[in-house]
Amino acid sequence: MENTPRGNRLHIAIFGRRNAGKSSLINALTSQDIAVVSNIPGTTTDPVYKAMEILPVGPVVIIDTAGIDDSGDLGELRVKRSMDVLNKADMVLLVIDAGSGVTDYELKIARRCQEKKLPVVVVFNKIDAHHVTEQQIEEAKTQLAGPTVVVSALNGQGIGDLKIAIVNTAPATWDDQAIVGDLLNPGDTAVLVVPIDSAAPKGRLILPQVQTIRDILDHDAMAYVAKESELKECIANFIKKPKMVITDSQAFREVEKDTPEDILLTSFSILFARYKGDLETLVAGAKAIERLKPGDKVLISEACTHHRMEDDIGTVKIPRWLRQVVGGDLEFHWSSGHRFPEDLSDYKLVVHCGACMVNRREMLSRIMQVQQVGVPIVNYGVCIAFVMGILRRALSPFPTIQQMLNDKK
Amino acid sequence: MENTPRGNRLHIAIFGRRNAGKSSLINALTSQDIAVVSNIPGTTTDPVYKAMEILPVGPVVIIDTAGIDDSGDLGELRVKRSMDVLNKADMVLLVIDAGSGVTDYELKIARRCQEKKLPVVVVFNKIDAHHVTEQQIEEAKTQLAGPTVVVSALNGQGIGDLKIAIVNTAPATWDDQAIVGDLLNPGDTAVLVVPIDSAAPKGRLILPQVQTIRDILDHDAMAYVAKESELKECIANFIKKPKMVITDSQAFREVEKDTPEDILLTSFSILFARYKGDLETLVAGAKAIERLKPGDKVLISEACTHHRMEDDIGTVKIPRWLRQVVGGDLEFHWSSGHRFPEDLSDYKLVVHCGACMVNRREMLSRIMQVQQVGVPIVNYGVCIAFVMGILRRALSPFPTIQQMLNDKK
Repeated sequence: MENTPRGNRLHIAIFGRRNAGKSSLINALTSQDIAVVSNIPGTTTDPVYKAMEILPVGPVVIIDTAGIDDSGDLGELRVKRSMDVLNKADMVLLVIDAGSGVTDYELKIARRCQEKKLPVVVVFNKIDAHHVTEQQIEEAKTQLAGPTVVVSALNGQGIGDLKIAIVNTAPATWDDQAIVGDLLNPGDTAVLVVPIDSAAPKGRLILPQVQTIRDILDHDAMAYVAKESELKECIANFIKKPKMVITDSQAFREVEKDTPEDILLTSFSILFARYKGDLETLVAGAKAIERLKPGDKVLISEACTHHRMEDDIGTVKIPRWLRQVVGGDLEFHWSSGHRFPEDLSDYKLVVHCGACMVNRREMLSRIMQVQQVGVPIVNYGVCIAFVMGILRRALSPFPTIQQMLNDKK
Repeated sequence: MENTPRGNRLHIAIFGRRNAGKSSLINALTSQDIAVVSNIPGTTTDPVYKAMEILPVGPVVIIDTAGIDDSGDLGELRVKRSMDVLNKADMVLLVIDAGSGVTDYELKIARRCQEKKLPVVVVFNKIDAHHVTEQQIEEAKTQLAGPTVVVSALNGQGIGDLKIAIVNTAPATWDDQAIVGDLLNPGDTAVLVVPIDSAAPKGRLILPQVQTIRDILDHDAMAYVAKESELKECIANFIKKPKMVITDSQAFREVEKDTPEDILLTSFSILFARYKGDLETLVAGAKAIERLKPGDKVLISEACTHHRMEDDIGTVKIPRWLRQVVGGDLEFHWSSGHRFPEDLSDYKLVVHCGACMVNRREMLSRIMQVQQVGVPIVNYGVCIAFVMGILRRALSPFPTIQQMLNDKK
């Protein structure tokens, strides 16, 4: 993710009057202290672009407008500079001091955002010190035309809700996360191992395989598609070695044997865990499997209601594998559809489906809901890779995340 | 096609009493004289399996039962041998002398076919000598539970209708024509050139590309997918050269430059002309373009009614290209949907769509309808390859058909 080109990152502009708490909000969102600026009013009127990571939203560029117009005065030059920022932003956080409420300044910014069709999230900050009424929230929603969140940048209250609001409000194009192409250089080859067994649909490939091929082409790289039985021959036939092998999880063991150590190896499931969600959070969730004890409550959650097959993955296979790892029984609960059970805090782990029927935005939003109550979350693909003992090798394209498996805790 | 394994060929068993004209019917269907047997009643009771080509149906195995039970006597041993044949057949032609009509023999065979769920086509032969009434046909249809065709194996009358009936009655599995896999050996690589332009759907590949990849895997070969800009680099990176390059027609010229002469080169359109119809007939149709004169009537026929786009291929582009080749205007007619215009005989050429929405069976049936009135037929893909001047090279995997382009007439 550290290599995400700046152009692909979600650009979030933060507007607000002086003392609304823009800088401390940035710190709270990114859990970093680098946005802190001096308390002396800014002497520059240029916005500052900061490439950051908001977990689990992913890489963003925060456009910090502290210094431009936070006096609340939208004079000629300052209007112009605000407009420049709006031209570069994908969305806007409009930060309001809960003690002051909405003023002309916020109304003007919101109007300009509407003209530019830029989504806005309204943030009432400092709720540690001031109370915000339901009526104030409803008024702000209407006047400023955006979802409204109440937070305390100081103590972190509401920051999880704000992240969810960011994910849900970000423009649809922001979903354009690469599947694998960002890990390849132009001209590189990825070998895709596609087993043809009785589960393969007749006459075609399954959608994740097709999406992966297309993503590779979109990044000026090449896709070599072969069955596991041809893989050895395939790799031996290269002058310049392929950069990566991507396999169906079922064939992982066999493919691992035929893939030299100097070639990256991963699975479609791992790539789609990243594409559809947040790989780092899900791998942290997999590590929580080791800490499970007999009797612990585990929630298995599917985003859609599908026809359960015999030996169903969610109701039969995953419970069986988890029991084997734990060495005893667990208390499984199941949920499906858009909503989680009311109270998640009792669970020691949430195991979520691969999210094939929902988009990245929805999956991230669900991940964040679980994170908010401090419960680890893993998805089917990462969970299966973990219990099969292939997760470490399958994370080879992601060394930072792979390293997490070595960490204590 | 000469390499079609026997197991993939449609197996057609021909039953009928002595003198019903089984052997001459085989000759008429295959336009070959090899089925002719002596007029002396057969001394063997073994059926004869003959691998043949019925144009444009394709490769078949005719199971010639002359000698088994054509006395009309279904004694114990002969019943057993008939059953053996039915176990190996995909469908049955039940040949009846139009002068004799339906007897117990035909009823028994038809009943056994029904038990085995084998489709039957009833053929009244010798209509050059005997008249068959509508009532006889209707009775035969009901009694023998199959479509009924009247033919003269002697003068060829009705043989076209019989071929259409064969195509329409053959079991669905017979559609399992390979796209390209039968042209590759296990372990071979085919390079697929997939341009990513504005016409490419977002995030995926088009179905023919996916089907081709799958077909290659099904034949234990490998598919190397690249854009045209990466092709040169891709080919240079092989130790053992790829067997074939398959490209989108639009990129053909560019791809041709980057594909060495010793690698076969074709297009998805050519492969699908073969997969969905009969390549030989369609190439013969392309040759007819050279014989068109200004003022000639050309029918452009689409199997489905789709939304016409600006610069539509059927109504704008193909007429433009054909006018350019002919050097003058042509009289274009258009048809769409399941039926052709009543009278096709006035047309000098039928240009048919790629049949993406209909199956091979339907497309073959349409090709044969046009052939019956002696009008050449070409499809969009082969037509475009011809007018673009790339047809010869694109036929490199099919040397026999490629040779047709050199032939006079």
